[in-house]
Parts: sequence; structure tokens; C-alpha cells
Amino acid sequence: MKIALVGVTGYTGATLFKLLKQHPEVDEVRLYGRSTPSDDELAALLSGFRHLSLHIHEYSSVNIMQECDLVFFATPAKVTSQLALDFIQADFPVIDLSGDFRLKDSADYERYYQAPAAPSQALQAASYNLADLKKPQSNYIANPGCYATATLLATIPLLAADLIDLDSLIVDAKSGLSGAGKKLTTSSHYAYINENSLPYKVNQHQHIPEIIQELQTWQPAFKTLQFTTTLIPVTRGIMASVYAKPKKPLSQAELYQTFADFYQDKPFVRVLKDGFPSLKEVAYSNYTDIGLAYDEASHTIFICSVIDNLMKGASSQAIQNMNLLCGFPLETGLTALPTFF
Amino acid sequence: MKIALVGVTGYTGATLFKLLKQHPEVDEVRLYGRSTPSDDELAALLSGFRHLSLHIHEYSSVNIMQECDLVFFATPAKVTSQLALDFIQADFPVIDLSGDFRLKDSADYERYYQAPAAPSQALQAASYNLADLKKPQSNYIANPGCYATATLLATIPLLAADLIDLDSLIVDAKSGLSGAGKKLTTSSHYAYINENSLPYKVNQHQHIPEIIQELQTWQPAFKTLQFTTTLIPVTRGIMASVYAKPKKPLSQAELYQTFADFYQDKPFVRVLKDGFPSLKEVAYSNYTDIGLAYDEASHTIFICSVIDNLMKGASSQAIQNMNLLCGFPLETGLTALPTFF
Amino acid sequence: MKIALVGVTGYTGATLFKLLKQHPEVDEVRLYGRSTPSDDELAALLSGFRHLSLHIHEYSSVNIMQECDLVFFATPAKVTSQLALDFIQADFPVIDLSGDFRLKDSADYERYYQAPAAPSQALQAASYNLADLKKPQSNYIANPGCYATATLLATIPLLAADLIDLDSLIVDAKSGLSGAGKKLTTSSHYAYINENSLPYKVNQHQHIPEIIQELQTWQPAFKTLQFTTTLIPVTRGIMASVYAKPKKPLSQAELYQTFADFYQDKPFVRVLKDGFPSLKEVAYSNYTDIGLAYDEASHTIFICSVIDNLMKGASSQAIQNMNLLCGFPLETGLTALPTFF
Amino acid sequence: MKIALVGVTGYTGATLFKLLKQHPEVDEVRLYGRSTPSDDELAALLSGFRHLSLHIHEYSSVNIMQECDLVFFATPAKVTSQLALDFIQADFPVIDLSGDFRLKDSADYERYYQAPAAPSQALQAASYNLADLKKPQSNYIANPGCYATATLLATIPLLAADLIDLDSLIVDAKSGLSGAGKKLTTSSHYAYINENSLPYKVNQHQHIPEIIQELQTWQPAFKTLQFTTTLIPVTRGIMASVYAKPKKPLSQAELYQTFADFYQDKPFVRVLKDGFPSLKEVAYSNYTDIGLAYDEASHTIFICSVIDNLMKGASSQAIQNMNLLCGFPLETGLTALPTFF
Repeated sequence: MKIALVGVTGYTGATLFKLLKQHPEVDEVRLYGRSTPSDDELAALLSGFRHLSLHIHEYSSVNIMQECDLVFFATPAKVTSQLALDFIQADFPVIDLSGDFRLKDSADYERYYQAPAAPSQALQAASYNLADLKKPQSNYIANPGCYATATLLATIPLLAADLIDLDSLIVDAKSGLSGAGKKLTTSSHYAYINENSLPYKVNQHQHIPEIIQELQTWQPAFKTLQFTTTLIPVTRGIMASVYAKPKKPLSQAELYQTFADFYQDKPFVRVLKDGFPSLKEVAYSNYTDIGLAYDEASHTIFICSVIDNLMKGASSQAIQNMNLLCGFPLETGLTALPTFF
Repeated sequence: MKIALVGVTGYTGATLFKLLKQHPEVDEVRLYGRSTPSDDELAALLSGFRHLSLHIHEYSSVNIMQECDLVFFATPAKVTSQLALDFIQADFPVIDLSGDFRLKDSADYERYYQAPAAPSQALQAASYNLADLKKPQSNYIANPGCYATATLLATIPLLAADLIDLDSLIVDAKSGLSGAGKKLTTSSHYAYINENSLPYKVNQHQHIPEIIQELQTWQPAFKTLQFTTTLIPVTRGIMASVYAKPKKPLSQAELYQTFADFYQDKPFVRVLKDGFPSLKEVAYSNYTDIGLAYDEASHTIFICSVIDNLMKGASSQAIQNMNLLCGFPLETGLTALPTFF
Repeated sequence: MKIALVGVTGYTGATLFKLLKQHPEVDEVRLYGRSTPSDDELAALLSGFRHLSLHIHEYSSVNIMQECDLVFFATPAKVTSQLALDFIQADFPVIDLSGDFRLKDSADYERYYQAPAAPSQALQAASYNLADLKKPQSNYIANPGCYATATLLATIPLLAADLIDLDSLIVDAKSGLSGAGKKLTTSSHYAYINENSLPYKVNQHQHIPEIIQELQTWQPAFKTLQFTTTLIPVTRGIMASVYAKPKKPLSQAELYQTFADFYQDKPFVRVLKDGFPSLKEVAYSNYTDIGLAYDEASHTIFICSVIDNLMKGASSQAIQNMNLLCGFPLETGLTALPTFF
Repeated sequence: MKIALVGVTGYTGATLFKLLKQHPEVDEVRLYGRSTPSDDELAALLSGFRHLSLHIHEYSSVNIMQECDLVFFATPAKVTSQLALDFIQADFPVIDLSGDFRLKDSADYERYYQAPAAPSQALQAASYNLADLKKPQSNYIANPGCYATATLLATIPLLAADLIDLDSLIVDAKSGLSGAGKKLTTSSHYAYINENSLPYKVNQHQHIPEIIQELQTWQPAFKTLQFTTTLIPVTRGIMASVYAKPKKPLSQAELYQTFADFYQDKPFVRVLKDGFPSLKEVAYSNYTDIGLAYDEASHTIFICSVIDNLMKGASSQAIQNMNLLCGFPLETGLTALPTFF
């Protein structure tokens, strides 16, 4: 296959490039961009790949469709809402890592992204595809967000089994710094954030409507959740700490069994029988690890899921979605073990 | 004053030593220990103080009472449960940074500390003293734990104002590594915990009964809470992220006013009108910063408090308790501003 | 005393503010700035001081001289080269933390700072004052740079004792991130520099001419050195690793004695008899720690000095210089012990 | 091929396991150990591999030779000096990541490793094989040490081209924490080493004789070097900062050309034309990046090389050596791009 990649210079784009270069079904990766740095500038931006001769071609949907078999957009929000139509009309395979096609409701998009949504018909054409649980319904895949992936994998089994009071869901999510991208900001300045931690975008994160939309597919009566995002001083990793009240008395064993059954044939989700996972146990991999506890004293369910935000939360899930879309075995190109130190 | 300090070599002991050397009412700090390293060994353990000639005297309650006016125990759990009786009988001033005299209920102590509790009568003689809110009731002060301090200061105003459903309290607390002391463990090994994070002692932390005991003094009907502790890769700092459901509809403004009123004459608690505090804003200081939010969609109160675990969570609170016990102005020796970078 | 502080919002300015608030001879600190953020903006910039009501007065040399007894400039390079003349003409006490008045040679300044130097006469009026070794010669003090301080304290004893081949000096200096200030840059972006390290400004750092100028006061024949600066992922701290060839055979004991004698009555320099210091042993303090080794096989002297770049490398050395200028005991306001964790 | 791996639980062993699982010529990896943890204990030690069912077989040289085609020893020093003889006698392929067979001179081994060396005849049978520059001379490969690899690749071109004064070599090497392994020590305790840095084993590191031995193969007159090792707070990475005086006048261009020519057909060494490499640019890869500068003022050559100590400094170099030994193309199993964030 010939793959087009738009947006190689960001963290998820560079990670995707690396994964594509290792993918056995990929013959060529062609880079496209709307701004086209010179080859020297590009080499400086991607200095880890300094032995390669990289070149960015000027963006053109026509050329991409002529020259390639599938395109990945590793671009920020607000790009594909403008550019996607050509591909949708042509039913050309797209995997979009941005948030532009995740929300079916334009109003939600406009509220959380503060920009015009893509045309409603185009939004309907896209498949939001949490790769461990679904199969693509169309050729335009909206790849899930990082916080959404960690949260959904930790909560869907609770809703699928109708275990919890739907009004009780609280998620205390932690994220490292790469989630915020390469853009220089005060909160990503080393001397500010090292040895530091703080909540941000409390109840305002743009992944909230995405989580609600997907949870409603499992329980239409689900309304909303408390969602807190806290920055912690690591480069990679998201932890979703989920709290909920059970509908009726529960045991730790039942809780474990619910998750173990739900994920029994899902190779990239690892449910722990005892204890809790750490961020590093999934670092640089496509795995999601899930630990769980039920506290009989406070009648509270606690689920903790961890992912690598640049991998499962973005680029390796995008590869998993490509495998699904193209009919390759699910683990193709994703067999690297986690690097836990 | 002449101060005795038992346990200078640990993180809280060394921090206390530093604070005592700066305290204007302290003339001399005498070090005592049950193990007495040679002066060279001690210098190596406290290498930051290498220009001082430090010496540890052999522990003797008689000598301490003869030579000093007050004793600090910066020792691990299980030490003062053995040694405190002499001081209690003599009504000699003690500030005990360990957990040995915090719990009034011996059974709780024995369950959470897995060791015999101090004699019941001795336990009753001790004052658990959260220094921002109480005055010592006796000469034996049980200095609060770090997680307990952060959690209590974030939750007591809710209970004092009878704002919340008592069954709904959930605390997702984060801690840095110094909280676990100098003892070498796998989870404190740099290559393990750097770039990492994981929950530990979920619903089993020894500060849980201490939190419950104190919350019951504000609301006797309070029973228990969900309490999760998560390790994050910083050296200093505790963040308590508190979630609760209000008894009745509430506004963000009311929530803020409740906290602002409660802490209005407390110089070491800073309530934020907007936004949330970060760990570094209180680092190396005696301050507790508190941010708050009420989410109308999910009907959830979110309170976030941050402290420096070695300072407010241990040593500077111990100085604040000394000031209270000795009748010094509350801020004596504690005027250093936070070092936020 | 009433102190004026220009430039409180940077790292060194805020650190200086904190030290001045603790200094027993300082009655008031008045803040001045050429840009004057609103009080709310200022509170956000200095969020660690959020309980204080801070206000920045519009900069005016006339007002500063009328209202205050001494002024600190914690401003970037290129500011005092413009503003200093009023104070120099009036012989008003200034402590300038910037590099603008450190170099006597305008051409050096213009080469390394790429900006016009201050008038030559003004440059001659300023005293470059390494506070552990000199007494101010005038009322305008050029406070030494951070790399220069660590390097000079590690090398001057070698030159003073005429121990080394003057052509052999090599300094491999390491610095944390706060040295680069609050300005957002790629190399200070957390996801870039955490878990990373790289040399920068090799043989081009602006502290090089300052080091050469001062070493020439001890050995006029000294010409230059190899000076490498390497960024390491810590917030605070500079380590100068110094290599030189001895003029004649030497022993480790002689090397130690040379340094011990040189610094014997200098309370803020601690020479280690064995082993090497670590950054944390001087963190948040005015100390410089020095370790040394002589390798008989390779005939190489190795000296390692460490400082806290924001303290000894900037703000606490500025306080030490104020103490010297005002005739206060040297240690006034500088008695805090290092915080080594 | 069937591969035996002895010592999977350490950092280099686990890294090697991961690489072997991705290697296209490896059919099976069998784990052996002298201590054999239960499968549950092993799973806990290798929690990042929690979806695999791992089992450690009891160590037996006979079984290894019957069941496998090649054995890797990722064991600490002092193990293969005892165990290697069976394999050497049988001329069975061994790649030994420890230091036990690197030094030809038993006295050097005994001085630096403080243990008895392997029998002299066995030592002679082993090939010290810096994989980028040599081909194995025998079936027993002593895989180079991490500091030695970074240092040799930065210095050999200087000696090969006879560019430097052999008495002038100084190496200021920096290392992260994983180099010290999983053993719990004070200097690897997070609260000690985070935000910290210090020199250690100055002129005493066990890689010094290995560096000298290999440099002498390029310049027999070479005697020794100054070698300083400094711990920096990263998990992975070694930087060798090399200083030397040229024999005769040199230009930056000549220096670059010397290195570019030397490494022109070496795919895993990347010589930078301008600027300097950072640790992350080679992280998780088999690359060595080299930057260089010649300072005309001080007549000093400065070379900076960076490697990932667990990869090029241990496990991926071991794979490269396996490729050489088995006649596979050099890059087999080593094509993953660096992960520079």
C-alpha cells in the first residue's frame, strides 16, 4: 500500500510515520502538508529521523487520491472540517486523528472546539471507531481522542452490563505533556511543570461530548459525567481514574469478571486480576491496562485505565483502525511489546 | 527555648531541623536518636548541612526533659507508641509527627498500622491538632498526616456548612515520592517511577481512619469515603481532588463563599476565587491552596487542595503547632514565601 | 531600608523578592517596571505569592531615588545599559543582576550580547563583584552570572596558587532550565527536554568573556578556555566540571589544601575533603560546594563545583552583595540551610 | 533460530527479550535462570509483558546447547566468568552483555571488578566486538559496555586519523539511571536523584580499562585518559563529551570530514554537520549520533556522542552482534526509528 500522511511534524504525525515505516503492508509513506517546510527545516523538526531524506509534498486532495491508497490526517482540529469533503465524496479511505469528525452533533463541536463544524452530512458519513470494540462503518474514520479512549475502555463494560447508577460517574483523568502537542505554552514550560501538577479545563475538556456520545450508544439514558483533567509531569501517558456507584450490591470478583468477560477476545486490552496498572506498563505500545476495586464500605466502584496517549490514544489506534479498514489481521504492525523503562 | 529533636535523618526530621534553625524563639536544637550514627556518618546522611558540626545524643527521656523545653518526634510509626509514656506522665510538651497518637480507637490503629497501639489512656491524652483549625487541648500533640491535612482542609468546610450528601465523598489524592521516606523500595526507584504513575493502597491507606475520625467531629453521622492514593513523579507535594454531591442545588458562588468565609482569618489557607492551584504554588511553604468548581450538569462539587507534604503535611505544621502550644504568634518562623520554581 | 526592585516577574526577580521579604534590614520592597501589568495580571504571574497584594509602580529613576535607598535590577540584558546612567551619575546604590555592566570591554559585550554596550565611562564605574571574594569598589554592582560564578569559584584557587598550565583549562558546565528564564522556547518545552540532554552555545556562551576577564585579574597571562554548556533536565542548578593540567607534579592532598586554605574564612563556600557534591546539596541556598580529584595516571586536575543558579548564581549573591555594600554582616538574610530534597 | 536468554528480569534482559520477539530470524526465545522465580513472580517482575505466559527454565549449559542455537547472557558481572567455559569448549555461540570477557588482562579485571577473572585462555577466546566497527573473531562475543561504546565511537576516528595529542584525552560522560540496573541504592532513590546530578566513580569506572584496551588497538602508544562519569536525572541515555588537543592546526571542516569519512558506510552512526545531538534523538534505537566542534581560540577539539544505554549500549548492539555472528543483514530486527518524545 501507498500511504499519504498529512501532518508529520507533530507528535502524533511523527509517531504515525514511525509505525507506518514498520508496518509490513505499507510499501511507501508519502508526506503532504499545507505548509511545506524545506527539506532542511523538516530534518530539523524531525531530528530523530536525521538519517532519512524526508520531503513534504504540497497538499492536494487530487494528488493524494491519485498517488495513494489511504490518507492519515495527523493535523490539529479545524483542518479536516475544511478538507475532508473531497475524500468523503470520493469515498476514499481516510483516518482522521483530529477531533473534527468525532461528534455527530454540530452544536457540541462548535461549543467545545469554538469553530464551525464540518457540514452535517459529512459528519454523518464518518465512523467514530474505538478500534478495540467496533468495526468501521464507512471509509472515513474519526480516530478517538486520547482521554476518550482511556475513559471509554474503563467505563463501557460498566454500562454494557448495566452495573452502575448512571448519574454517579466521575472521572479524574491525568495526562502527561505530549497530549498538548508541540505548541509552546506556559503550562508546558519545563521550569513551570516539572515537579508540578494542576487540574485544568475542569468539566470543559473537548473530549467530554465524545465520551457522552459513545456512552449513550451503550446506555441511551446516560446523560453526563464529572470529568476532571489533571496535568502530571510525564511526557507520555493518560490515566483515567473512574468512580461510580453500583446499582445493586456487587463483589470485587463480579466486577473483575464483568471486565474479563467483556475484553476476553480483545488482544490489546489487559484486565488485571489484582492491583493496578502503571503508565509505563503500556508505554510505547497499543495496550490498555485496566485495574479495578470495589469498596464495600463506601459502595464505590473504582476503575483505573492507562494508555500511552501518543500510541493507543492516537497513532497506534489509527494503525489498528487501518488494519480493520483494510482487512489486515488486527495486530499487524502493532506487535512491539511495551517498553516499561 | 531548647528543643529536642528525635529522628533528624529522615526527610521530615531534616526539614524540621532547618525550620527550627530559622525560628526566632529557638535558641538551641539538640538531636537525639535511638541509633546514634557517628558524626561522620551523620554528616553523610545530612550532606546538605555539611558546614555544620552535628552530633546525635543517645536517646533518653530523662535527659530530654532535663535539657530541653519541648521535644519533636520525627520518627516512623511504632516508635512513640513505645516511648511516649514518660512524657505524658510528666506532662512534658511533645509534638509527634508520626501516626502513633492520631487515632483514638486502638482497633483502627492496629488494623491500619499492623502493630500494637499505645495504651488507651495515653491515646486519650494526646491532641490531634490540625493547626489551622484547632488549638491544642494537651501537651502531647499528634501532628496530622500529610494526606489527612490536604483532605481535611478541602472537606471540612463542606461538612461544617452541611452542604453535601455524606455518602458521596470520593477523594482521588496524588502524592510525590518524598512521602514514602528514605526507605529504598521498587516504587521509589528512579528508573521505575520517573515518567510513571500508579494507584496504590487504594482504600487501604493509614490516613483513612484519621480523616474519618476528624470529619466525624464536624458531622457525627459521617461514615466513610472512597480514598484513592496515586503516586506521581514529583519529589514533593500532595493534591487532594475531592468529589461530592450537594444536598441541595448550589451555585459556584455559594461554594466559593462557603470556603472563603470558613478560612477568612486563617493566614495559611488560600482559597482561589477562580481556577485551580498547582503543587509548586505551595512548595517549600506552610500554605494550603484550595480551588473549587460546581458542575451543574453532573451536580458534582469538585474541590482541589494542594500542600507540600514535608512542610504543611509534616514539619511546618509541626512548627505551627509549636507556636500554638507555646503561645507564639502563629506565623513565627513560617514567613518564608512559597518557592514556585 | 527601602528597596526598589525592577523586574519582579522573572525567576530571579521573584526569588529576590522572596529573599528581601525575609531580610531583617529591609523594611519595604517597592516594585517598579517599565511595563506595568495590572494587579490581577501580576497576581497571575506570581501565583505563589497569591496572598499578597502586589503592585508594580511605573518605572522612574527619579522616583526610585527619592523613595528608596537601593535598587535591584532583575531585568534581562539590554535594559540597564540604557537606564543605568541616572543612578551612576547620582552615585545611587544599584545591584544589577543582568550582564550589561559585567564586561569592561565594550567590544566583548557587543560580540556576545549582540547589542550596543553601555557608555564606556559607565562601564568603568561598575564593580563586577564575585561576592565571596571581593568587596564592592563602587555603588554600582554588576552581579556575576550563574555559569561564571560556578566556574570562577572552581578555578580561581588554581590560578591564584599558579598551579596549572594556563592553556589547559576546559570547563564542561551543566545547567538546568530555569537559567533560560520564563521565555518559551523549543528547548524549554517539557516534552522536548524532559528525559533529554544536549550541548548548546558551545564556546559561544555570553559568560565566557566574563570568566576570562576575571581570571585575568588573577593571572594576567591567562588567555582563554574551552567552555561547553550542556542542558540537563532539572529546574535549578549549575555544575561546573573543570579540567586542567598541573604545571608540576601534584598530589590530591595538595590540591585539597590549596582550596581549603583559599576558602577557609568564606562561609558560603564548602570544600569537600572526599567525594563530590550534588546539585541538591546547595539547592535553595547561597552555598557553593566544591569537590576535587587529581588523576595521577592522566595528570589531570578535576574540580566540580555546584550552585543553585537562581540563588548563588543570581539572587542570593545579589543579597550578599547588598550586605557588603551596606555594611551588614555577610550572612544577613542568607542563613537558610540548603533544602536537599 | 532458537535463542536462549539468561537474565531476562534486568533492564537489559527485558529489552533484549523485546528485541528478540521482533527479530524476523528468531523463532523462539527460551528463558533460563540460575534463580527461577515462579511464573507469577516473573509476571510481576516483567509486568509490561503481562499478556504473555513467561516461564524461566532452570539454568543448564547442556540443555541450552541442546535446545537452542545461540545464548545471550544479560547477567551481571561475575556470572559468565564462572559459566562460560562449557560454551567456549563447545565453540557454541554466546553473546555476553556483561563485562566478564571484555578485558584481555586479568589484572585489569580484578582491579576494576574486584573479583577473580575468568581463566586467561578463555579470555583470549572471546571477541570484544564493537559492532559498528568490527566483525566477530570467534563464537564468544563480549558485547561492549555502554560508556565504552559512546566513548569509543567518539574517539576512535581521532586516533585512526592520528589527529590528537595522545596525552590530552578527557571524557566527561553523563549517564541516566537505568545504567545502574534494578538494584535499589541511595543514588537511584527518586527523591534523591530527581532534580539532582553528581559525579561518581571519577577515574574509577570499570569501563576505563575497556576503553584504553580498544583505543590501543588503533594507537598502540595510547596510555590513558581522564574519565569522569556524572549521573543526570533521566532514565535512559549516555552522553560522552570528549575533549582533546590536536597534534597540528585543524579546521572544523577537516574535523567533520574525518568523522564523516570514517562512518560513511556505517548505517547506525549519524555524524552531524552542524550542531549537537540530544539524548532523545537516539532513544529506544540502535543509533549513535555524533556532533563536533573545534575551538580555534583554545585549540580544543570537542566531540559529543549520544546513545541509548539499554539499546546501543547493551541490547540492540547485542542484536547487531548476533546479526554479524549469524550472517544476517546488519539491520535485521533493528529498523525501528528513534522515538524522540
